[in-house]
Amino acid sequence: MEVDFTNIKVIGFDADDTLWVNETYFRETEEKFAELLEDYETKNKIDQELFKMEMDNLDIYGYGIKGFMLSMIESAMDLSNNKVSQETIGKILDLGKKMISHPVELLDGVEEVLSKLVGKYRLIVLTKGDLLDQERKLKKSGLSQYFHHVEVLSDKKEINYRNLLEHLNIDVSEFLMIGNSLKSDVLPILNIGAKAVHVPFHTTWAHELVAEDEMVNNHLKLNGLKDILKYLDN
Amino acid sequence: MEVDFTNIKVIGFDADDTLWVNETYFRETEEKFAELLEDYETKNKIDQELFKMEMDNLDIYGYGIKGFMLSMIESAMDLSNNKVSQETIGKILDLGKKMISHPVELLDGVEEVLSKLVGKYRLIVLTKGDLLDQERKLKKSGLSQYFHHVEVLSDKKEINYRNLLEHLNIDVSEFLMIGNSLKSDVLPILNIGAKAVHVPFHTTWAHELVAEDEMVNNHLKLNGLKDILKYLDN
Repeated sequence: MEVDFTNIKVIGFDADDTLWVNETYFRETEEKFAELLEDYETKNKIDQELFKMEMDNLDIYGYGIKGFMLSMIESAMDLSNNKVSQETIGKILDLGKKMISHPVELLDGVEEVLSKLVGKYRLIVLTKGDLLDQERKLKKSGLSQYFHHVEVLSDKKEINYRNLLEHLNIDVSEFLMIGNSLKSDVLPILNIGAKAVHVPFHTTWAHELVAEDEMVNNHLKLNGLKDILKYLDN
Repeated sequence: MEVDFTNIKVIGFDADDTLWVNETYFRETEEKFAELLEDYETKNKIDQELFKMEMDNLDIYGYGIKGFMLSMIESAMDLSNNKVSQETIGKILDLGKKMISHPVELLDGVEEVLSKLVGKYRLIVLTKGDLLDQERKLKKSGLSQYFHHVEVLSDKKEINYRNLLEHLNIDVSEFLMIGNSLKSDVLPILNIGAKAVHVPFHTTWAHELVAEDEMVNNHLKLNGLKDILKYLDN
């Protein structure tokens, strides 16, 4: 579809699963978590209960690995009727610590795209989740040099974006957001009158899925980040 | 001592134990944690080991309640030689959740000071810790209206302050920081050439203590936040 990018001056990039791999590590950890608890429940039931626990705890823990670790521990106790061994709880802590210190894997074309857009546009990172985790990942990624500003938000709802654009003195008509989540990177952005490009990642967390009837058509969907270069000055 | 505040245009307030009570809840939770583990070790040993665990985990978890919860669980397993019951681990999770949803208790004089300084100075909140926790506390505090900007930092070292002042276009000569921690709110601020006021809280986390030989004299120390009104326009 046609989207007019001629006014764009500032581009916001989501980070997890847009600049680098993230969801994959959560899925891998969930697999290992289910193996640790296979004596108590089926893999399906374990997946469901862990997701339910994460949703129940989302208001108090927010996004990020530490909340995920705490929800895994609480789920393990629930699923096993408090029979899970202390050793298993120790292993769950280890799984989380490994996620935190995992190397950063850039997605295809990221360096090329950023190096071509920098100077032409003001580039910023807009991510949600744990502040320390996200700062650490950006540092490990080697991408800090391309960004004018990095903002870690506690959530990515319309109000969060509105406040941020106001605080950074960015006009909505000049702002383009690029990300993998329709729910967090596209819909709220379109609702505040800015522009958005959707670059799907092969794996999407259930919490980020959007019902068909919420889908909107006035955004560009790309197969890979590199395709954005066809639409922007570089 | 004499400190010249005539150039000050922007005042940064630390939040925890400067605007509202915080450390007290950590101390209370540590007491309860020690009671839960009293079959395994003395209170002294439990306190020491938990603090050591927090320090060992600080690089990966950062500041905040979720990291504290994870360190309590790990300590409980270590201190009990993996004998701690699953019920006790459940109780540790409950202790942490209670901390997160604790009401916010403002410290004496906070509302008076902020309402008198707002309009005369640009007031900002500069806190470290968990983004969601700090946003939630500010909202519960009812103080948001007084602040031009709120920044949650992953740490409060010279580099964090320098980057922030640059990002917010604040000249160091016009910046005053007010907080309860010599280590986080005073020393790094003086080192970058800005001004700092120390308002001690009756309880200081061991990690925030400063050795005598690091102490500096070129800052003002007040007995209570209200005393700042004697030194500033209001």
